[in-house]
Amino acid sequence: MSLDLVRDRRNHDAMRAHDLDALVCRLPENVLLLTGYWPLSSIAFVLYPREGPVMLMAVATEEEAIPHGAVDEVRTFAYGVVAATDPYGAVRRHLAEAVRAAGLGRGRIGYEGSFEAVAPGHMAAEPLVPSRVTQATIANAAPDATLVDATAALYEARARKTPIEIDQLRRANRVAALGLAAFHTAYEPGRTEAEVVAAVEAAIRGQGIGFEGARHVRAWAELMSGPASARAYSAHPTTTRRVIARGDLGLLELATVVDGYWSDLTRTLVAGGAPTTRHQDLYAAILAAHRAVMAAGRPGMTGAQVDALARGVLDDQGLGAHFVHHTGHGLGFRYHEPHPFLHPANEGEVRDGMVTSIEPGLYIEGVGGLRLEENVVFTSGGVERLSDFDTDLAGARGAPETTSASADAGRAVSTTSGPRAGKETT
Amino acid sequence: MSLDLVRDRRNHDAMRAHDLDALVCRLPENVLLLTGYWPLSSIAFVLYPREGPVMLMAVATEEEAIPHGAVDEVRTFAYGVVAATDPYGAVRRHLAEAVRAAGLGRGRIGYEGSFEAVAPGHMAAEPLVPSRVTQATIANAAPDATLVDATAALYEARARKTPIEIDQLRRANRVAALGLAAFHTAYEPGRTEAEVVAAVEAAIRGQGIGFEGARHVRAWAELMSGPASARAYSAHPTTTRRVIARGDLGLLELATVVDGYWSDLTRTLVAGGAPTTRHQDLYAAILAAHRAVMAAGRPGMTGAQVDALARGVLDDQGLGAHFVHHTGHGLGFRYHEPHPFLHPANEGEVRDGMVTSIEPGLYIEGVGGLRLEENVVFTSGGVERLSDFDTDLAGARGAPETTSASADAGRAVSTTSGPRAGKETT
Repeated sequence: MSLDLVRDRRNHDAMRAHDLDALVCRLPENVLLLTGYWPLSSIAFVLYPREGPVMLMAVATEEEAIPHGAVDEVRTFAYGVVAATDPYGAVRRHLAEAVRAAGLGRGRIGYEGSFEAVAPGHMAAEPLVPSRVTQATIANAAPDATLVDATAALYEARARKTPIEIDQLRRANRVAALGLAAFHTAYEPGRTEAEVVAAVEAAIRGQGIGFEGARHVRAWAELMSGPASARAYSAHPTTTRRVIARGDLGLLELATVVDGYWSDLTRTLVAGGAPTTRHQDLYAAILAAHRAVMAAGRPGMTGAQVDALARGVLDDQGLGAHFVHHTGHGLGFRYHEPHPFLHPANEGEVRDGMVTSIEPGLYIEGVGGLRLEENVVFTSGGVERLSDFDTDLAGARGAPETTSASADAGRAVSTTSGPRAGKETT
Repeated sequence: MSLDLVRDRRNHDAMRAHDLDALVCRLPENVLLLTGYWPLSSIAFVLYPREGPVMLMAVATEEEAIPHGAVDEVRTFAYGVVAATDPYGAVRRHLAEAVRAAGLGRGRIGYEGSFEAVAPGHMAAEPLVPSRVTQATIANAAPDATLVDATAALYEARARKTPIEIDQLRRANRVAALGLAAFHTAYEPGRTEAEVVAAVEAAIRGQGIGFEGARHVRAWAELMSGPASARAYSAHPTTTRRVIARGDLGLLELATVVDGYWSDLTRTLVAGGAPTTRHQDLYAAILAAHRAVMAAGRPGMTGAQVDALARGVLDDQGLGAHFVHHTGHGLGFRYHEPHPFLHPANEGEVRDGMVTSIEPGLYIEGVGGLRLEENVVFTSGGVERLSDFDTDLAGARGAPETTSASADAGRAVSTTSGPRAGKETT
């Protein structure tokens, strides 16, 4: 059992629904799901049985980082040192012993068979992922068990976040706001896009580590300015060394991870703070679409119904053709999660505790692209934002007192660069 | 055929050796290997047959980024927009048609079955990796073909880099040097570790995009200072908000990717520039171990023999017990590659064109940890460094003219912050 009893109950519900006697996971996002602990090395494996002790197999050098009570048992092995010639063999031996002890030898064991998208772990420059090697490791440790692809069960278990997890996601959004504040400061005429994203990422990394106890913090920002903003719906937003000019729209896509919990935010600013009437009108439509979801979104609606709240506003203004993507997607244990999907074709139900992006956007060649993306949780009371950072389009106008958001001057940044008193624009 | 004929020949050699009629790959690192093009969205698939046209299936929005001549044919599909409900279905249809056209219906098709470690693509916050879904997509497109795990073939093909690839890796090291320069500037008493890594990463991202034509640049830095340096051999080096004190050792581990080509460097500095005699002695031993590899390393040696060059120096000085890890590892298409492994147990041969790290290090509790990591290529003439950045331990003492390495001030950084005139310490 982990330290989050609600989480344990949901995991067990999913295992029961999929007739699984145990899970064996090694993706950091699922180790976090099952134990509340985000492993430092991505070769940590967890055995999570429906009955019996939860066991974490991890690299010896991370033993001291594992919180007391996160799992029932920790077994360690050497990795990355001369003596460690067969870490998968060590996992296999520990796992075989635990499978035997738990009476799982002929059980149904779920593994991560179909995760195509994964969250990078702490060593984000080199994610470790389950392949045939992982599957063979489990199969060799439990040769008479039935191995079952548990991807669907894991995604279902993850879809509704617990109160403890939602608190973690609120903190991730507060850390991300350090980057949004840096965007307000750095997005000005004469800068390159590359300099701006560097400042945003540096603010989050430089100030975020240690923020409210956060241990592992990293951000990925992409900025599309000027004409490129009109294509910022693409699956691969790309930052260049383009120099920003006064009046340019700048659309910042920002992923932030804090101890394994993810935030996914977008802001649009106008360089120099003087939006055109056309940009103001488009952004007003986006804000109205946002407000429509916040006002009327409820658990029990389908993904398509929530999507229609935003899309309807933009359709009514004749802008629907420019809103080319979904209204939102699940997130939390990763930058994107499959449940729920706020998309016209999704008849799945949005449930209490689900966390999503809400991201209406408009993209018009020759005019530009604008998007506002927030993270929200669906509750019995409706829809709550997980952050309260400013959603103004104007940028530098009215920005917080001039503070340097650069990492170099990071020590001088005061909390006044954080979220501004919430103008209730959304 | 790609634009690198040497690369094509090596890929074909590996396919022949493993009796493969074609490869179907989707990891960005292998799309790069097969086409010379690093895809922007990680859902690009490439069909690379031994005979017949090379086909890239990619998201429509990246079509204009694909260089002319990289592949024989490009087929696109929608992704991430409302209309894109089944991108894997689109891949399957394109692939089925191409498999038929190439007469591969009953062939042996290799796929990426056992890649446990992967390189993040451009959208590094969410790597897409091959799972059962990818395997099923290929199997459904070529139901009568034999699917073969081609992981070994791909790693073999990757092990020897071509002259064009080595040029790319030299550029990646020059971009990484922007970060090393920032480390020299930022690593000083009173800073937090977090601020220093933020400055290093921001220098690389802010100045690296566009550097010598680089399009996609990102860095991952971790800094272990003071007592933590003694554990910096761990598989999960970790940055904290510890405040650096005068005389502290600081070990920076730095991964950099430039258009899909990777650099892996480590530097150790002393804050305030006044190493103790003990630190100087230990670092001198590390430099001597480094020089031993540079002087005597040759293609044709085994990985164990190259490792012994460095290890022998440290053993002779009674320090061998503190050199707890390998001397080096392959790299290039990823932060770490399996071939060659410069480790006492590896009897595999180091060959001409192989690129490795050389990273002797010493870690002593109560004293600290020091490591120097460089990237080299083995050639008929011996061993060549891929970068020429300073390897001095003293840090700020003698650092380049004071320049701000922060992203915020990135515009002011001149090229004088780049590599210093090579003191031949290694």
